[in-house]
Amino acid sequence: MKKDILLLPGDGIGPEIIDSAVAILEAIAKKFKHEFTFKQHLIGGAAIDAASTPLPTETIAAAKKVDAVLLGAVGGPKWDQNPSHLRPERGLLAIRKALDLYANLRPVKGFEHLLDASPLKPDIINGSDLLIVRELTGGLYFGEPSQRSKDGQSVVDTLTYTRYEMERIIKKAFESAQLRKQKLTSVDKANVLESSKLWREIVDQQKPFYPDVEVNHMLVDAAAMKLITEPNSFDVIVTENMFGDILSDEASVLTGSLGMLPSASLAENGIGLYEPAHGSAPDIAGQGIANPIAMILSAAMMLRYSFKMDTEASNIEQAVEATINNGYYTADLKVKTGSLVTTKEMTNNILRN
Amino acid sequence: MKKDILLLPGDGIGPEIIDSAVAILEAIAKKFKHEFTFKQHLIGGAAIDAASTPLPTETIAAAKKVDAVLLGAVGGPKWDQNPSHLRPERGLLAIRKALDLYANLRPVKGFEHLLDASPLKPDIINGSDLLIVRELTGGLYFGEPSQRSKDGQSVVDTLTYTRYEMERIIKKAFESAQLRKQKLTSVDKANVLESSKLWREIVDQQKPFYPDVEVNHMLVDAAAMKLITEPNSFDVIVTENMFGDILSDEASVLTGSLGMLPSASLAENGIGLYEPAHGSAPDIAGQGIANPIAMILSAAMMLRYSFKMDTEASNIEQAVEATINNGYYTADLKVKTGSLVTTKEMTNNILRN
Ligand SMILES: CC(C)[C@H](C(=O)O)[C@@H](O)C(=O)O
Ligand SMILES: CC(C)[C@H](C(=O)O)[C@@H](O)C(=O)O
Repeated sequence: MKKDILLLPGDGIGPEIIDSAVAILEAIAKKFKHEFTFKQHLIGGAAIDAASTPLPTETIAAAKKVDAVLLGAVGGPKWDQNPSHLRPERGLLAIRKALDLYANLRPVKGFEHLLDASPLKPDIINGSDLLIVRELTGGLYFGEPSQRSKDGQSVVDTLTYTRYEMERIIKKAFESAQLRKQKLTSVDKANVLESSKLWREIVDQQKPFYPDVEVNHMLVDAAAMKLITEPNSFDVIVTENMFGDILSDEASVLTGSLGMLPSASLAENGIGLYEPAHGSAPDIAGQGIANPIAMILSAAMMLRYSFKMDTEASNIEQAVEATINNGYYTADLKVKTGSLVTTKEMTNNILRN
Repeated sequence: MKKDILLLPGDGIGPEIIDSAVAILEAIAKKFKHEFTFKQHLIGGAAIDAASTPLPTETIAAAKKVDAVLLGAVGGPKWDQNPSHLRPERGLLAIRKALDLYANLRPVKGFEHLLDASPLKPDIINGSDLLIVRELTGGLYFGEPSQRSKDGQSVVDTLTYTRYEMERIIKKAFESAQLRKQKLTSVDKANVLESSKLWREIVDQQKPFYPDVEVNHMLVDAAAMKLITEPNSFDVIVTENMFGDILSDEASVLTGSLGMLPSASLAENGIGLYEPAHGSAPDIAGQGIANPIAMILSAAMMLRYSFKMDTEASNIEQAVEATINNGYYTADLKVKTGSLVTTKEMTNNILRN
């Protein structure tokens, strides 16, 4: 198959780990006789420096023409004092909205070999394998009004959702649960928020269409506790944008391998943006020591979700697992034994596997 | 001293643990020659059953006349299907608003002897001792509009704050940090919310007035991670209502002793409501096996914050600690050795100490 991929390296370690993903994808193309073409554009701090905007219109135009987007990471201290429209994260928020990337999928699964690095006790974290499905284009992130009063004495942000926006993410979550362990936990704050009540109603309305999926409702505060006390009781978690932001970051540190976690952000028309769950790590940028695995696994997610190349995706995932089991690790992983390698060496080891 | 205390036992294990707190307070009164008088009123499910409202006006009137309020817990499956204005939690939200209890203080500290029960590894949890200061009467909890559109196709909730509301909670947090380890972490989502930008500004404006306090800003998603990976890096955390709800529940399970954590909700005029961080535990209600310690430590917080009885409060806290160190535990605590006791036996042991 022929596929066009847009690369958005972004800031910090972004460019280094994007290189790793491209190397892996080229190997896959060769092995499975596909043709991947890569274009590259600007986003985040890099775009601010070059074009005075965190998301140039050329980047959006290019993203709309390709089959999928790979994003490295955005942000860094250089732009931290900028006014908000000139901050790197704005590029991320803007591309989500521009491409209508409403479904953010974040799998959290530990590597057997690395569970030592988990902050949790082994009996708590063992067997955890969950997927957070976060709504990504609604809620407090984009609701209007979002402003200070004229006299500066008060401020308002707005949490809005349409029924349609809730329905599509909830359906996506049910479908994701069907492909996994058929268990869905819907997280809301229905004892306080009107939006959560509608959310809960829609989950209950959709339930009969997925009779094989076991659903339960959980309040967001209870979910924040249970992720720590019983992470292995979850399969798929679905929630709105801000709760998803908090819970998915909370979940991302449980296994001790944040540097290994990929994510996918999907639109209804099939286009997807794939990026690591971790940030741009400006402190280690340019040193060639970043962990490329979250980026590489994000590329695998792209193959699976956007290109329906299941075998190819599994091929990458197995190569990563084998490399980890061989004892190779990068500096971010708190393991005690094995061989410490650079970004390039890690990538080459994965290529060999 | 003479003090009037309002008891709101509420639902589930509420009445049992309130009895324990009263027994302890009576012993303190005797020992230190104070005079505590107790009145009792309805809240939550108990009030719904007796008076068709989760917060009768008599309860509010009584609360406004006393020196402090002790609350057991509200809620239970019996009322779970009720329409929202007839749900027990509404009583809690309404009393917070009626008494203007804007500052919720939740200390999280493990008992040396019980750290085994923590889901975290010992090297991660050891030494953790933090205080969450949560704004309790603003934000998404009370903002208007909070409703569905007429056609039912969309929904809105509103996050509002006045500068004044932010200022008073932020000052309270600075003052709390001065009394502890002089470290304040202000948590917001300033890369997305306008309200968080004002919040951050006010924190920075207040900073010069507390030169002994070291302040830093942290995004809520980062805080959700760091609570797990480095809980002992925190001293005081201050944040708005919904973020505080999520983070304080997340923090409450870290030490493995949720049944031991008290909380205080304070108004500007000095009145305070004190309640355990845990819920009404309907599954074990009426069996006399509930852990009374969070309630007893809440009473100790009342002595300290509302009555300025520091010695008396420490007396209770030391008795609790001694009892735990003697190996007594209730059924909720996942410890492996010691003597399993009932609510009454635990209370009597604490009384003896
Ligand atoms: C950078 C920030 C705006 C963003 C968010 O809050 O969505 C990030 O935290 C994420 O989760 O992708
Ligand atoms: C019962 C509920 C409305 C309440 C809240 O969200 O404030 C509770 O979770 C709490 O933290 O006291």
